[in-house]
Amino acid sequence: MNGSDGTTAVLLLSCPDQPGIVAAVADFVFRHGGNIIDAQQHMDRTDSVFFQRVEFLLDGCDLAREEIEPALRPLIDRFAMQCSVQFSDDIPRVGVLVSRQAHCLVDLLARSRRGELPIDVSVVISNHADHAEVAEWFGVEFVHLPVTADTKPAQEAAVQSALVAHGVTLVVLARYMQILSGEFVSRWPDAIINIHHSFLPAFMGGRPYHQAHERGVKIVGVTAHYATAELDDGPIIDQDVVRVSHRDSASDLQRRGRDLEVVVLARAVRAHVEHRVLVHGRRTVVFD
Amino acid sequence: MNGSDGTTAVLLLSCPDQPGIVAAVADFVFRHGGNIIDAQQHMDRTDSVFFQRVEFLLDGCDLAREEIEPALRPLIDRFAMQCSVQFSDDIPRVGVLVSRQAHCLVDLLARSRRGELPIDVSVVISNHADHAEVAEWFGVEFVHLPVTADTKPAQEAAVQSALVAHGVTLVVLARYMQILSGEFVSRWPDAIINIHHSFLPAFMGGRPYHQAHERGVKIVGVTAHYATAELDDGPIIDQDVVRVSHRDSASDLQRRGRDLEVVVLARAVRAHVEHRVLVHGRRTVVFD
Amino acid sequence: MNGSDGTTAVLLLSCPDQPGIVAAVADFVFRHGGNIIDAQQHMDRTDSVFFQRVEFLLDGCDLAREEIEPALRPLIDRFAMQCSVQFSDDIPRVGVLVSRQAHCLVDLLARSRRGELPIDVSVVISNHADHAEVAEWFGVEFVHLPVTADTKPAQEAAVQSALVAHGVTLVVLARYMQILSGEFVSRWPDAIINIHHSFLPAFMGGRPYHQAHERGVKIVGVTAHYATAELDDGPIIDQDVVRVSHRDSASDLQRRGRDLEVVVLARAVRAHVEHRVLVHGRRTVVFD
Amino acid sequence: MNGSDGTTAVLLLSCPDQPGIVAAVADFVFRHGGNIIDAQQHMDRTDSVFFQRVEFLLDGCDLAREEIEPALRPLIDRFAMQCSVQFSDDIPRVGVLVSRQAHCLVDLLARSRRGELPIDVSVVISNHADHAEVAEWFGVEFVHLPVTADTKPAQEAAVQSALVAHGVTLVVLARYMQILSGEFVSRWPDAIINIHHSFLPAFMGGRPYHQAHERGVKIVGVTAHYATAELDDGPIIDQDVVRVSHRDSASDLQRRGRDLEVVVLARAVRAHVEHRVLVHGRRTVVFD
Repeated sequence: MNGSDGTTAVLLLSCPDQPGIVAAVADFVFRHGGNIIDAQQHMDRTDSVFFQRVEFLLDGCDLAREEIEPALRPLIDRFAMQCSVQFSDDIPRVGVLVSRQAHCLVDLLARSRRGELPIDVSVVISNHADHAEVAEWFGVEFVHLPVTADTKPAQEAAVQSALVAHGVTLVVLARYMQILSGEFVSRWPDAIINIHHSFLPAFMGGRPYHQAHERGVKIVGVTAHYATAELDDGPIIDQDVVRVSHRDSASDLQRRGRDLEVVVLARAVRAHVEHRVLVHGRRTVVFD
Repeated sequence: MNGSDGTTAVLLLSCPDQPGIVAAVADFVFRHGGNIIDAQQHMDRTDSVFFQRVEFLLDGCDLAREEIEPALRPLIDRFAMQCSVQFSDDIPRVGVLVSRQAHCLVDLLARSRRGELPIDVSVVISNHADHAEVAEWFGVEFVHLPVTADTKPAQEAAVQSALVAHGVTLVVLARYMQILSGEFVSRWPDAIINIHHSFLPAFMGGRPYHQAHERGVKIVGVTAHYATAELDDGPIIDQDVVRVSHRDSASDLQRRGRDLEVVVLARAVRAHVEHRVLVHGRRTVVFD
Repeated sequence: MNGSDGTTAVLLLSCPDQPGIVAAVADFVFRHGGNIIDAQQHMDRTDSVFFQRVEFLLDGCDLAREEIEPALRPLIDRFAMQCSVQFSDDIPRVGVLVSRQAHCLVDLLARSRRGELPIDVSVVISNHADHAEVAEWFGVEFVHLPVTADTKPAQEAAVQSALVAHGVTLVVLARYMQILSGEFVSRWPDAIINIHHSFLPAFMGGRPYHQAHERGVKIVGVTAHYATAELDDGPIIDQDVVRVSHRDSASDLQRRGRDLEVVVLARAVRAHVEHRVLVHGRRTVVFD
Repeated sequence: MNGSDGTTAVLLLSCPDQPGIVAAVADFVFRHGGNIIDAQQHMDRTDSVFFQRVEFLLDGCDLAREEIEPALRPLIDRFAMQCSVQFSDDIPRVGVLVSRQAHCLVDLLARSRRGELPIDVSVVISNHADHAEVAEWFGVEFVHLPVTADTKPAQEAAVQSALVAHGVTLVVLARYMQILSGEFVSRWPDAIINIHHSFLPAFMGGRPYHQAHERGVKIVGVTAHYATAELDDGPIIDQDVVRVSHRDSASDLQRRGRDLEVVVLARAVRAHVEHRVLVHGRRTVVFD
């Protein structure tokens, strides 16, 4: 019923902890002929919540893709699960929002092109016109939506329309310097990834490299997180840091930080599109 | 039958990969009333070998400790498993071998005393007399077994006897500068942990910090690995590194390396005694 | 006039930037027969302030130790310098303040004993009695000064007296959980080193590992800084971090953090006692 | 005589250590009206060799560029110095050699274009035709020079001719998978930078990520070094590493390594073109 091409289904589930969940899920997959190639779980002891990621080969499975979720319904009800079912060959349609600095945008496009990151960048939207050419080079539609203080709500609405029109299921804020409204954010829950150029929660808000330089830190960092209505406060997906010294000016910190931004954003996008991330309040579970 | 004190059993198993293993093991635990609190698995695609660590609460389990392995026998046979069963309150008896430098020894004793590392250091053996006092301070028996080129086999035999006499199940080479024979090593298979003061396989053999200085590397590292008959070639459990520069002399590298040795050895011992390590040829699977 | 034992003098100086400083200082040392073995400088472009560390061999120098600073006076006046003169064989008298957790204390004592850190720990002061034995083991006087909300000012005065009585020139807060008054801090300007168990300025104040766990960060850090009247706001000397995951509870973060605290505090103390640190407002210049 | 635009001269010098060098060089610059903005030195105690980097503003200097080296001649002779004089506005002409994988090439071109790296990539040469388009996009000439076992010497000669024809002073091997002859290497002494995809000296030779996977290391690294006649043995400029686990296949190591290769190669090129690197036998001095 399903091809022998290595395509997998991924179950991402969470529920109140109780005995028997692991056995029940494993049994479900086994009974339907799926071979589990990865199963990771986590039990949050603070809240007694159980999280699991189960990936199994569709080849041999006696359920069609659309039958899996209905077949899981009894388990979902029994354990009061949140559960999503996804497939490894569903390549998400990604919209990238970007302002002046193009390094994260170019990196995502290059990774996508060389087959390193399973995403389909469908549209690039910017409040600046600068990146039209590079988008064209990569064969991606570019939408220029300038913004001023007066036009902010209208511009955001236009951004949202463009994303919707392109069927975008993952929005990446690749150094997009505009604050998004709660309404916008709620349109893609846990599906807007922002790269913030500091080690959050240090240096929230604007010009974090300048803040870091003034404070005299010996390490700077970057943070990839899901955007929420609360600025710079969303669940953190990944972070990384680099050592700096008194020799580094604020612009040196910016330069060093750029190399981190590129890598940490790509790692976070990869974790998301491989269905490895579960959100739990302000925290995330990121399976390896 | 088992206490309600949070004591757990840990199954560490490996076998040729095939569908149904995860379900069978989870079902086994569930049927016997155990609640799985951690289950991690890994499938080595090169060799099609499946590895799993399953930890479950004894509280509620209808099997006594000594009944678990026999009850698992049908599964072990069906899947041709290697399987060990261990318990979280079995504190291993550890023998520490050390030469001149005491930093790793002192660190292990201090971690053990403050309850950070679940080990019972039963005996400290050294070819130097220097560390008698510190062993005494920590209340651990100290055995001084000096060695010369002529007495090497006899001394090693005496070391082995002392370890056996103390019922040691884990040997830690905490900067022990004597090469051990294959016979000795085979006495504690995958249960002798050595800390090598280089990023293996770079700088095998003696004086690795001097080798590193001469080569002009910009990073030095250390490696914790299981000892095998082949010097510096055993399965790696953990490694870490630190950045150095042209300013660092060979003795600076030694000093910086010491801080790494302490931490990496402690991490490797922790992984071992928490039953998180499975050996697979020259490699290890180390579950988080 | 001075021994041929490798003893060096270290000049640490800062002044408004202008041409000729490097030449003037190098010429001064050369004229007096000193051989410069290390000279590092830094120019802060924001404030146009020049910083320099010059280390030269006393062997061959025609000035006695006490004559160096007077001989420098014309240069100091000409360039409006702040300048200190120190000697590599002046081992600072250190007072260590500690509360419940002993890991940083023990580490400093062990490094000092094995000759790795050129400090003379003269007194250990704690608001708990627990560490008397370990201090005795290392041959250091231990002073127990318990504190309650009511006795805080009196206890702090007693701490200060004990430090003064021991001639302490460097105070190390090795996980000392009491807030010090501005008066106390001003008694040892730029000579009280605190280890804070977070990556400052993230998680200032109490229970930073718990804060970090709640925020769901993927990296935790520690910060060694000079204490100032403003809590957790003093000039940062060194920081380091370690990667964590959703698997880590708040107490796991504490455990991982302890390994960092030990190393970062030791590095900061080393930088200080080797006269490598210059304070510039809220920032530091730390020469390699 | 010289502009007031912040252009600097950089002296890179080395000589047998003796007193008075720092003073003599600083005095030289001061007498000629140059303002030193950076001076770093290093004394190699093993070989008693002194290294220094001195950077001073040309503005105010009474020597024309071409007069500086002749004016330094007495100092050079007195101290038996190796000395080079370079200028911050001399942008080096760079030739990039690349095989199949383009990530390092694209990164260098992007950094150059956005003004982050002061290089002029004059020509891209590859044994594959794939990268013509991207070179064109960045406006750089592309030369396709395919190679077989039979044509190797002729192809290398053609590569060398193309580099010479473009006046290349720095050759970057951006994942160029052909071994270069000693004759070729000697044409650009200490001016061919290679990025090797392992933490040298571990895993020299071919397919290092596969070697690393087989050995089961827990960290992989990359190394930027000057090419010498001896393969993978040249002086190391920079290295970096990333943590891996049993979950990572050899191709995962390749992917993780690519992110390192890009950053470490860029850092090494930056250090070289900012005249921060001095070669000392198999080691380098890399000033910050």
